[in-house]
Amino acid sequence: MAEEQHYSPGLEGVIAAQTRISFLDLEREEIVVRGYNLLELIQRASYVEVVGLLLEERLPDAHRRQVLETQMVTAAVPELVFHIVAQLPASMHAMDRLRTAVSALAAADPDANTADPDAEQAKAPRLIGQIAQIVANLTRLTQGEKPLHFEQGRSFAENFLRTLVAREVTPAEVRAFEQSLIAYSEHELPNSTFAARVVASTLADAYGALTAAVASLKGPLHGGANEAVMEMLLEAQTAEGLEALIRQKLARKERIMGFGHRVYMRRMDPRAAMLKETLRELIGAKGTGSELLAMCQRGEDIMREEKGLYPNLDYYAAPVYYLLGIPIELYTPIFFAARSAGLLAHIIEQHRENRLYRPRVLYRGPRGLKL
Amino acid sequence: MAEEQHYSPGLEGVIAAQTRISFLDLEREEIVVRGYNLLELIQRASYVEVVGLLLEERLPDAHRRQVLETQMVTAAVPELVFHIVAQLPASMHAMDRLRTAVSALAAADPDANTADPDAEQAKAPRLIGQIAQIVANLTRLTQGEKPLHFEQGRSFAENFLRTLVAREVTPAEVRAFEQSLIAYSEHELPNSTFAARVVASTLADAYGALTAAVASLKGPLHGGANEAVMEMLLEAQTAEGLEALIRQKLARKERIMGFGHRVYMRRMDPRAAMLKETLRELIGAKGTGSELLAMCQRGEDIMREEKGLYPNLDYYAAPVYYLLGIPIELYTPIFFAARSAGLLAHIIEQHRENRLYRPRVLYRGPRGLKL
Repeated sequence: MAEEQHYSPGLEGVIAAQTRISFLDLEREEIVVRGYNLLELIQRASYVEVVGLLLEERLPDAHRRQVLETQMVTAAVPELVFHIVAQLPASMHAMDRLRTAVSALAAADPDANTADPDAEQAKAPRLIGQIAQIVANLTRLTQGEKPLHFEQGRSFAENFLRTLVAREVTPAEVRAFEQSLIAYSEHELPNSTFAARVVASTLADAYGALTAAVASLKGPLHGGANEAVMEMLLEAQTAEGLEALIRQKLARKERIMGFGHRVYMRRMDPRAAMLKETLRELIGAKGTGSELLAMCQRGEDIMREEKGLYPNLDYYAAPVYYLLGIPIELYTPIFFAARSAGLLAHIIEQHRENRLYRPRVLYRGPRGLKL
Repeated sequence: MAEEQHYSPGLEGVIAAQTRISFLDLEREEIVVRGYNLLELIQRASYVEVVGLLLEERLPDAHRRQVLETQMVTAAVPELVFHIVAQLPASMHAMDRLRTAVSALAAADPDANTADPDAEQAKAPRLIGQIAQIVANLTRLTQGEKPLHFEQGRSFAENFLRTLVAREVTPAEVRAFEQSLIAYSEHELPNSTFAARVVASTLADAYGALTAAVASLKGPLHGGANEAVMEMLLEAQTAEGLEALIRQKLARKERIMGFGHRVYMRRMDPRAAMLKETLRELIGAKGTGSELLAMCQRGEDIMREEKGLYPNLDYYAAPVYYLLGIPIELYTPIFFAARSAGLLAHIIEQHRENRLYRPRVLYRGPRGLKL
């Protein structure tokens, strides 16, 4: 059996893990997360419940939910980490600052070198809380301001959002933000989750695996898309402007960010449809932003007509974050913060039943050269 | 065609990349690097020549070698990076400090966000030089000492070694060290190289891909092995002690570090045989250390007899580094510094002909649960 027959660039279609965490069921058009439909979780669960579901394989009861939320909200970020972030220049990409911070987070954990899944499960809520607080303060610290801290008595989602925007937030805003967090929380085996599992398989610890995931998510073909979408919307200004901009880009054969997805291909990302609804509700609650929705709709229509491509989650998460007043450079860091729950579930699962990732290559170079 | 048939845990035997860089030819028992036999490179090339070969697809001529060596030796580490490393606690694992430093290195590069292979190739020698200087100062900075800098007029290998051990070094020591650097420089698609390519495939930049590789190399199933070997040799003290220790571990079914390799399996890692020779020569030149070689030989004999396992490169690199007086916590960081040449070659190759890594899963969890 020739090896060449089995080479699939980008491992497209290749099974690279067994998992009990999630699955993109293309036939039934369902994103399955621990047995639940992700869309139902977005509509009816809290982010903390989804964290519990991801980490502990079942939805937490009221008591457990309270314990998890307290762990996530009271998780303290080591002063050293805030101090290091504050020294990084504003010219450094926000994801590079986040990558450095997540790596440095290991400094204050006396148990940082473990690949023991039970120990990892125990500290996972704390890690998710720490990461959210780092993300929420990423721009602020670089501008020389003091970090804002989470407060007990408020939900995790409310704490995260109000720390991001440095103001009181309404329940409608918190709910819209929370729905985006759930939408981003887990998605089978995208590049960042795969990178985290690959790294974890050397029995490297969670900090290393999470750091690799930040590195992956920075890439414009992955997490970087939500920021690129917002830049495009801001450049276009109006629905007409967006139409002109997209047609111009298409004529130049440039990539339009926020459309298409390796796995969905010919269908709309169901999370995008859900976030579009979230955007509509947020506009209703705030009484502003309808022109953003009109722009997005126009872009969606043109791309479907011209290219047969549908929007992905990033396309509708971007305007939601914009309306909430979140700095654009934090969109991808928020994606990572939300996904940290799914990433930790994958790291723990990898460590529970580990096999080192070590594939082979197809060698196309020269042979037999002599010095 | 059922997907289950194609699931290979750890992607064992799966082709995950096309490459012109290197290949483990198991049939001919040859490690091919850009067409050359790695063993010949270890014996007859300089590390800088191998860097040139890896990055530019051919052995550099005398002029090009000089240019590369100057770039590597004069590469300045940003003060900020040394400053950040100096703030990290000594209790933090050396690879975690290195991971944080490599991530932070992006701060001073105005072109850090590029995935342009030409730009990456141009800065690769500088990056290799910066990484070596960070590694050489990793322990020193954490102890509150000032960093030592590389000096023009000395070779890269000499600079690296004398900065590591903070003393003048002999040509025999430099040559032994340089042979280890070449032996570690490139090795097809081990976990860390795979992790770097996976991350690079999102069009994330070289800093992110290298950071992921550090995270991977920390794992005890990967780079962490050379330190574990040295700890075992130090615990055993004598050949008899090592025999007793190994038999004890075997009886308890514990893993013995430094033996076996996923790809070599039933054969001796040819790099190990070469480094064993390097160790022998270094002992001859220094007139000390023969008891270390005797210990290693005893361990090798027992493992072959008892388990049919052969030593890998880490098994003989560890005593070489010990005899050179290098702090044990720097053995894995040195592995990374040496491998950064191969890693950069893979990152550049990935960016030249990119396809996003995005495999699928085999879902084993529940379905159809309702909220």
